[in-house]
Amino acid sequence: MRLTRIGNWEYLRFNHKFKSLLEGTVSLDDTVIWGYPKIGRILQLDTGIAAQFEQPFWVEEKIDGYNVRIFRHHDEILALTRRGYICPFTTDRVSDFINTAFFEARPDLVLCVEVAGPENPYNEGSPPFIGEDVRFFVFDIMRQGQPGFLPHQEKRQLLETYGLPNVALFGKYQIRDGKALRDLMLQLDDEGREGIVMKEDSAQEKRVKYVTGRINVRDIQVSERGIQQLPAEYVMHRILRLVLFMEENDIAPTPALYQELGESLIAGTLDAIRQCREQHKVFRRYRCRFRQRANAELMMRSLRRLLGKGQVRQRRLSEEGGFAVLEFEKVLPRTTGLFQHLLTGGIVFD
Amino acid sequence: MRLTRIGNWEYLRFNHKFKSLLEGTVSLDDTVIWGYPKIGRILQLDTGIAAQFEQPFWVEEKIDGYNVRIFRHHDEILALTRRGYICPFTTDRVSDFINTAFFEARPDLVLCVEVAGPENPYNEGSPPFIGEDVRFFVFDIMRQGQPGFLPHQEKRQLLETYGLPNVALFGKYQIRDGKALRDLMLQLDDEGREGIVMKEDSAQEKRVKYVTGRINVRDIQVSERGIQQLPAEYVMHRILRLVLFMEENDIAPTPALYQELGESLIAGTLDAIRQCREQHKVFRRYRCRFRQRANAELMMRSLRRLLGKGQVRQRRLSEEGGFAVLEFEKVLPRTTGLFQHLLTGGIVFD
Repeated sequence: MRLTRIGNWEYLRFNHKFKSLLEGTVSLDDTVIWGYPKIGRILQLDTGIAAQFEQPFWVEEKIDGYNVRIFRHHDEILALTRRGYICPFTTDRVSDFINTAFFEARPDLVLCVEVAGPENPYNEGSPPFIGEDVRFFVFDIMRQGQPGFLPHQEKRQLLETYGLPNVALFGKYQIRDGKALRDLMLQLDDEGREGIVMKEDSAQEKRVKYVTGRINVRDIQVSERGIQQLPAEYVMHRILRLVLFMEENDIAPTPALYQELGESLIAGTLDAIRQCREQHKVFRRYRCRFRQRANAELMMRSLRRLLGKGQVRQRRLSEEGGFAVLEFEKVLPRTTGLFQHLLTGGIVFD
Repeated sequence: MRLTRIGNWEYLRFNHKFKSLLEGTVSLDDTVIWGYPKIGRILQLDTGIAAQFEQPFWVEEKIDGYNVRIFRHHDEILALTRRGYICPFTTDRVSDFINTAFFEARPDLVLCVEVAGPENPYNEGSPPFIGEDVRFFVFDIMRQGQPGFLPHQEKRQLLETYGLPNVALFGKYQIRDGKALRDLMLQLDDEGREGIVMKEDSAQEKRVKYVTGRINVRDIQVSERGIQQLPAEYVMHRILRLVLFMEENDIAPTPALYQELGESLIAGTLDAIRQCREQHKVFRRYRCRFRQRANAELMMRSLRRLLGKGQVRQRRLSEEGGFAVLEFEKVLPRTTGLFQHLLTGGIVFD
């Protein structure tokens, strides 16, 4: 448990799972916001739904963004990242996307939201249907001070009543609907979308995720300079997911796919090496739009505190179309350290 | 330290480094054979030789095989693997490649040998210039009961006197000879050879290895079905080595290279998944030629003991051109376990 301070907020944050308290659980004055549980992944659809579900399940779109929990605390509406940090960017933008009448009526509830789009401070990838900025997609509702989620119908009702933006709902499926789900996945794959989350329509809150084939190649592509910074399993698992998806759906690999994968791996590494040779560090650039300039400044302070002072570099903060647009760079520390060592003739044992 | 029994041999084997005793050190009756030390790797040639060496250094070819130490014990000549197991295959074949008069004259010495070729029981890759069977390449000489190596000239003298097969010697280079070494590396790269080991011509036994770019793609290709079995770093490090080699030598990546890399990763994984679906296990096949049928049988017993009974499967053992030809398969246990779990709809958290 860590005392965490971001701007004027000071609170306790569980940085590890502790008994039933999930990682990312936060205690702020008398408010406790439960961590968002990890969702397991299947890599085969037909056998996966048969093995994982006992009842019919709802199928919702899985959005390629970052997971936040949004809640009301006194007079403020705050957004917590998965690990339980208050995010100045997401908090700044809540009122652009979420009808705050929801929290006036139901201050006891917590919205679980995927924030996605090209202009965000965390993710490299973003859904192909978001051309700029970000969008919010509610996918679950929790209660303050409690684990677990509102039942599906109650959630849908609230989303509708308050006109909250939400993930696409593809409907309710049975365990025998593997074929229909595979058709849905092939369509999402064609459209470059990430995949689905399946939620059993029962009291046990069983959830399982499953992604399309192409998103795995895209995940590797968008890593760009960061490819050698990721855990090594990142790439190998995605290749495995891709191949299992293709094999189950009888899609033969093509030379174009091979080339695309090979290029992502080589070009990202080469780009990082060149930057390290020229600038002695490897950076990734981010850009995001704030309503309040003060929140952009808080975002920078917060990132510096979290990642280390020399690891974040502000490139620009200026007004543009009603926004304070922040551009900054994060150093990729492992890549930078390893590449500097190697470029100066350092030795490795393996 | 482990008591190790292979056939009629029983001995102590250091399965971890212990003080100055390297991993793979072996104590057999009154004979101690020192472990072969790990050699560090540079990934940049020009800065690497400047950073690592203080004196001129000998440059020898690095052969893509497995490392054994060959020594005389009473009336037998035995071969130890890197980890200190007596290898029935290598032991069986010593007299085909090594003039045993060497050990009659110098029973106190240990030959450090790379065994390489398509028909070997351990490695997937092999040098392009070995079309069948294996070959032995002496690259160092140690003394029984002592760490360290004979000096370069003494080694060369013995190799010549006894006509021992050895790795190519490319000559003595200075720290300022980066350009000449890069030309040598480009030639080895063209020929599909692995690289070089540089050995400082001084008392401190400083050694450094450096490999060509293409060998990294080849390493991934030859992994075939085993690609998901390897440590995840295996692939990412090889991509890094490849890209650093290309960048230092101003070689631009081509679509053909991208395609080759992408295909190796995808095709190997797909092949392993298909085999697991059909046979419920993922196997790799090996073939090697023995002089004595009893040694082939001992090899199988020894592999079963080392890897586990169900993990090795003999496919064939028959006479062919004066050899007892053994074909066997090893199960890839991690890949098999993971793929079985996933194919039957199992869930993973990541």
